[in-house]
Amino acid sequence: MIAISSRDNKTLKLLRSLQRKKGRKETGLYFVEGVRIVEEALRWRDSDIEAVIVSESFEEKNKNFVYSLDENGKTVYTAKESLFAEICNTETPQGIGAILKIPPALKLAEQNAEFVLILDGVSEPGNLGTIIRTAEAAGLDAVILLKGCADLYNPKVVRATMGSLFRVPCIIDADTDCITTLKEQGFTVVATALKDSIEISSAQLSGKRALVIGSEAFGVSEEVFSLSDIKVRIPMAGEVESLNAGVAAGIAMYLLKP
Amino acid sequence: MIAISSRDNKTLKLLRSLQRKKGRKETGLYFVEGVRIVEEALRWRDSDIEAVIVSESFEEKNKNFVYSLDENGKTVYTAKESLFAEICNTETPQGIGAILKIPPALKLAEQNAEFVLILDGVSEPGNLGTIIRTAEAAGLDAVILLKGCADLYNPKVVRATMGSLFRVPCIIDADTDCITTLKEQGFTVVATALKDSIEISSAQLSGKRALVIGSEAFGVSEEVFSLSDIKVRIPMAGEVESLNAGVAAGIAMYLLKP
Repeated sequence: MIAISSRDNKTLKLLRSLQRKKGRKETGLYFVEGVRIVEEALRWRDSDIEAVIVSESFEEKNKNFVYSLDENGKTVYTAKESLFAEICNTETPQGIGAILKIPPALKLAEQNAEFVLILDGVSEPGNLGTIIRTAEAAGLDAVILLKGCADLYNPKVVRATMGSLFRVPCIIDADTDCITTLKEQGFTVVATALKDSIEISSAQLSGKRALVIGSEAFGVSEEVFSLSDIKVRIPMAGEVESLNAGVAAGIAMYLLKP
Repeated sequence: MIAISSRDNKTLKLLRSLQRKKGRKETGLYFVEGVRIVEEALRWRDSDIEAVIVSESFEEKNKNFVYSLDENGKTVYTAKESLFAEICNTETPQGIGAILKIPPALKLAEQNAEFVLILDGVSEPGNLGTIIRTAEAAGLDAVILLKGCADLYNPKVVRATMGSLFRVPCIIDADTDCITTLKEQGFTVVATALKDSIEISSAQLSGKRALVIGSEAFGVSEEVFSLSDIKVRIPMAGEVESLNAGVAAGIAMYLLKP
């Protein structure tokens, strides 16, 4: 195990850079923080793990676990509490994190998909992560992030996926061309829209389908609407103008699942 | 308009006390912060508004709006930015808030309800607020908060409801006795449960129904389960152990609505 005791330590500098998309892009690495998500990374993406970082108090309380990582050949760094807190963007750091390699980009054509989710401008990291978590539960085969979504490897996104990121095929930085490709492959493209739409329960879908969820503030973009086959809305009673984006996506996925 | 310029100002002391349940209980008041929620309060609970508080820069940018409040007889306080920020628990205060009277407790018997939501230990303020927002959209007639939920008048809860709090009848601090009462009134009580449950789409409900959503960490309590008629689960594919509480509540409400 390698102790980090100075703010100038180069691993610490790397970790700070991974808080930003630029740093992740330049290094091809990302950072996840929290007991649960590190456990999921060890289970599903073990070979992507470059290093594990623990705080001194986490090490003290979880000696056997930390030593077993070390014995299994993982590079383990230990850092003082204050230094560990600095690399986490959570209010109450759990004392363990991991650096992982960003996997090679997936191609849509390689997924044998029947039901996919297309995200158009989902920019709030917590919402994006929650939506990916729900997508796995609802049985979606892939999630396509059009350009303009939050970065999939933002630590807050990764954390909110609760590990689903490691299991659901995610296609990032996609162009709207991919929607045309899906249509050529026989997908019905269903976009959620408040206006000029039919009630979601009236959508009679059969076969392959792609559900489009838009940005929290502006919904689905005009360009994507123009490529869609059907516009659907979740009926809303009372005076509610919109649902939380994560909740709306969850309801739509469950109502449209085959 | 009344300027607040000192930390020792008594309105500021009151506002600080409203951040805590104890302060809200002692005064019978609560505080909401943000442009949208203050607009909703003015629209739906005008007579409950005791005062409006704006920051100096908000006043500067929204002179007509602020003056119209003053002309319409509202007590309007203006506070320096730093003092305003102190009374908000948001990272980026929007510069406007309001103090409202907590309305008298509602009684379940007074609601002519067909579909109600029962919350059992929902403790995360953001989740609670989001669930109340979704409940209005899904057309629920009332939300019952059993003892142990987050406080309905916590500023984070109020904010996350996006105004639904002002429109959906909420019964707070309820005992589990209310479930027995609902059953006597002909309600079918449906609790969400991961184990020993049927798939939610198989639940054949007719007539009046009450949906129970449990705590984020522990689900529905044993006591409440024992009072329930049916246990249902949202089917989950993949390796997902649970859904976000707000998302799960939303899916369940939409799948069970009459």
